[in-house]
Amino acid sequence: MAHDIRIVTEDQLRAAVGLDLTTVDVIERAFAALASGKVVMPPILSMELAEANGEVDVKTAYIPGFDGFAIKVSPGFFDNPKIGLPSLNGLMILFSARTGLVEAVFLDNGYLTDLRTAAAGAVAARHLAPEEVTTAGVIGTGVQARLQIEAAHLVRPFARVLVHGRDPGKAAACAADLQARLGVEVEVTTDPAALVRRSQLVVTTTPAREPVIEADWLHPELHITAMGSDQAGKNEIAPQALLAADLYVCDRVSQCEVSGELEAARAAGLFAGVTPPELGEIVTGAKPGRRSPADITICDLTGTGAQDTAIATHVARILGSAGTIIHA
Amino acid sequence: MAHDIRIVTEDQLRAAVGLDLTTVDVIERAFAALASGKVVMPPILSMELAEANGEVDVKTAYIPGFDGFAIKVSPGFFDNPKIGLPSLNGLMILFSARTGLVEAVFLDNGYLTDLRTAAAGAVAARHLAPEEVTTAGVIGTGVQARLQIEAAHLVRPFARVLVHGRDPGKAAACAADLQARLGVEVEVTTDPAALVRRSQLVVTTTPAREPVIEADWLHPELHITAMGSDQAGKNEIAPQALLAADLYVCDRVSQCEVSGELEAARAAGLFAGVTPPELGEIVTGAKPGRRSPADITICDLTGTGAQDTAIATHVARILGSAGTIIHA
Repeated sequence: MAHDIRIVTEDQLRAAVGLDLTTVDVIERAFAALASGKVVMPPILSMELAEANGEVDVKTAYIPGFDGFAIKVSPGFFDNPKIGLPSLNGLMILFSARTGLVEAVFLDNGYLTDLRTAAAGAVAARHLAPEEVTTAGVIGTGVQARLQIEAAHLVRPFARVLVHGRDPGKAAACAADLQARLGVEVEVTTDPAALVRRSQLVVTTTPAREPVIEADWLHPELHITAMGSDQAGKNEIAPQALLAADLYVCDRVSQCEVSGELEAARAAGLFAGVTPPELGEIVTGAKPGRRSPADITICDLTGTGAQDTAIATHVARILGSAGTIIHA
Repeated sequence: MAHDIRIVTEDQLRAAVGLDLTTVDVIERAFAALASGKVVMPPILSMELAEANGEVDVKTAYIPGFDGFAIKVSPGFFDNPKIGLPSLNGLMILFSARTGLVEAVFLDNGYLTDLRTAAAGAVAARHLAPEEVTTAGVIGTGVQARLQIEAAHLVRPFARVLVHGRDPGKAAACAADLQARLGVEVEVTTDPAALVRRSQLVVTTTPAREPVIEADWLHPELHITAMGSDQAGKNEIAPQALLAADLYVCDRVSQCEVSGELEAARAAGLFAGVTPPELGEIVTGAKPGRRSPADITICDLTGTGAQDTAIATHVARILGSAGTIIHA
């Protein structure tokens, strides 16, 4: 039946919502809802297009009490940069949770995903990082390297950032951007072990298939957020490091064991029969988080449909009259 | 990266594409592609929203050689009629198969799904029904009851239609619509056994959870297309009837065994270790179809993402300048 549907572009979305503490709080509530056990979040639909070196993921979740639910489509086509296009794109669709009618189409080219992913990093840092963080490190130099550090700075206002990447040019560009955005001291380092050693908060944002952080680099007063792994076979943190930490937390256990750090750990025979806590359980206090300043904590983010539903319903509330109404 | 995306409404889509032999041929090619083994078609993403008596399904498929792939979202909210809204809605999104960029959003409220579903019925009838069909029967009185009969008539121009439904008023309305659309003799019957006995082609379009066709109703020179079952627990054809038929064909075995007629048959201990042929294999001639006029054939349609990709890429080709271009 014909009804009004709001079509919103990336520019309009960028004007409406950004990476701030309000967005972090929105995503934190999604994690709290996940811990309630009442969220319906089916396994990710994933399709590979090998001929085009592409893949597409579809995520969704229904959160009781939310007016709407999002379906988020994330294509990744990794030959796109050769023709001047970004690898990642996509859109989110917001449906009424009462009637299933399409309410809005957010043509965000992945912007809302970037936001909700970075905000999850801030939620992890808020609940797990040491209170005192003077130096933060990031391994990776892409969009999420910038956003994760910006998000973490909202909850742990550190004075120094260390950046490591395989490509020195990209690392320098990432460092320059972070310096400009945050006004903090930023240093590029070619030594990831030194980066970890000097930091109290480290974020990994790589598509690595071999660990970029080794177990013997860990030290007291450290939190690591690993957000790069999101497909089977990816692995950023050495399995022994998960075991060596005082606390290893998943955004969603069922996802981390197939596409996160838990996958490699289980393959190495670790965490057999052990169910790590989820970030939402730390947020709600259902399970303990960091117990002392000296603790080593690791949080594994694979990205959840609950975050998509949370950001999409939030954006819909604050959009005002932005966008184009289509009567369809 | 900002690019042009075409937003197309249901009205614009209805003006561009209808149920005709061109559409049937488009869907037939999707089935042929499925039989090639090169189509990538992940399992359906399905989410239940129990509080709202709703569910949502997401289907997709990549067909080699096709410029684009569709992601189709089908919400079904079964309390909607109480507030004057249809139960079924949704949209299709067309992506470039080379870059993953969103090319078009078809705000079709389920129209393209209706079309491609009816067209699959015509493909099944074209390849499996007896050459001579003078009477066609339909059990069910909804949108698909009308469209399936209309589609079958394109390939088997029968002179008489029998309609059976639990609600006499709905059956009469369905019969009147079919009479007006096809100009054939249409009769309502309260006796589904007589309907099957008198027909050479029968379509079932119900959400039944108990069989609406029994095995001992089958007779020589009969084809049945069962298109209603699309969720676990649904069942239109008595399991023994599948076995009694000379040929039982699935649109996709992996779907029929979880959400089609094969589910109930397997639960009854039938077809253990047996893989029925798929419709695409009949289309391409890889496996035999009907062997004689006297054969009894049954085709089980659950609906495939390949059909969605086929109808969406077809519509995109013929749309011309219809729709609204959004630069996003």
